[in-house]
Amino acid sequence: MPFALDDAALDLLFREAHTPKTFTGEPVGEDAIRAVYDLIKLAPTAFNQSPLRLTLLRSPEARQRLLPHMSPGNQAKTATAPMTVILSVDLEFHRKLPTLFPAVPGLKDGAFAEPAARERSGGMNATLQAGYFLLGLRAAGLAAGPMTGFDAEGINKEFFGDGSQRVLLVVNAGKPGPDAYRPRGPRLSFEEAAVTL
Amino acid sequence: MPFALDDAALDLLFREAHTPKTFTGEPVGEDAIRAVYDLIKLAPTAFNQSPLRLTLLRSPEARQRLLPHMSPGNQAKTATAPMTVILSVDLEFHRKLPTLFPAVPGLKDGAFAEPAARERSGGMNATLQAGYFLLGLRAAGLAAGPMTGFDAEGINKEFFGDGSQRVLLVVNAGKPGPDAYRPRGPRLSFEEAAVTL
Repeated sequence: MPFALDDAALDLLFREAHTPKTFTGEPVGEDAIRAVYDLIKLAPTAFNQSPLRLTLLRSPEARQRLLPHMSPGNQAKTATAPMTVILSVDLEFHRKLPTLFPAVPGLKDGAFAEPAARERSGGMNATLQAGYFLLGLRAAGLAAGPMTGFDAEGINKEFFGDGSQRVLLVVNAGKPGPDAYRPRGPRLSFEEAAVTL
Repeated sequence: MPFALDDAALDLLFREAHTPKTFTGEPVGEDAIRAVYDLIKLAPTAFNQSPLRLTLLRSPEARQRLLPHMSPGNQAKTATAPMTVILSVDLEFHRKLPTLFPAVPGLKDGAFAEPAARERSGGMNATLQAGYFLLGLRAAGLAAGPMTGFDAEGINKEFFGDGSQRVLLVVNAGKPGPDAYRPRGPRLSFEEAAVTL
């Protein structure tokens, strides 16, 4: 089946893209992450709830606050990446629903009045947005290094002490450095992952 | 900041893309979903765990099994979409880790031996893959109609009666039909969604 995207775009986003273990020193500024956000914010979430939040760690001081909470194997690359972004879910996302989804006025004080409902739906939709964000970084010509190896409770306490957000992923971003790639692991075939009824 | 992708690609994936409420009758076959899967399976998951599973509802009989579990507002478009795919997480994904991530041999019987750990990590990583899948459909020139308005327990019982999978999203796919789009809702600005430290 032919794709609507050309091969160069498919290569950039998927086929040649790869999680790097090193980065060059080329800086990545807030402007780059802003451009990626302004692109991926357009992709869909349930009720347009848009619960993803980004904490950009640009300063060395901010990076130092994160490092002790990263797994040992993730510390060196997180210390040296040109940009590190904490992706989190806003557990109070319902407050913005009257603006984001005015078509159903009762959502804020109805379906999403309960914290457990916000945790479930917000967590899922922010994670969808995290997927968009990783591909958005690639669309901007940046290599994305997503990590789940960290002490989530420690990060939440350090950066979201009021409990209003919960960390999902920490993502390094930059240009891949020398010897950046391990060989790609195998993937499941369509037959292993899918069934047609 | 310039993107590495050209404007036509950015428009197709994000700027002009839109969740449709109607589809044309143009068929979408298993081959199209296979091509999308073979593309998006390359994008990253933690430990390459690749927990997303797809159930393609091609036959009218299969679609009829789903419809009673969809919210009333989602039934008509799900009945008439050229293709409907149930995206789910494989809660037994750890069985494939010795093949998918041989670098850490103990994962299957260690960190992921507990169902709660698989539920948490698998649910998150399958949802990341669901995000990749939605953009992959767009890369294939298809409009993606993701839905969370359904009775999850009902779908799980009907399609995953052994408890090995849990539904995440139901996605209609096809070419957008006449009058397919509502106006796009507002999105949060970078300042509302992000902070730089």
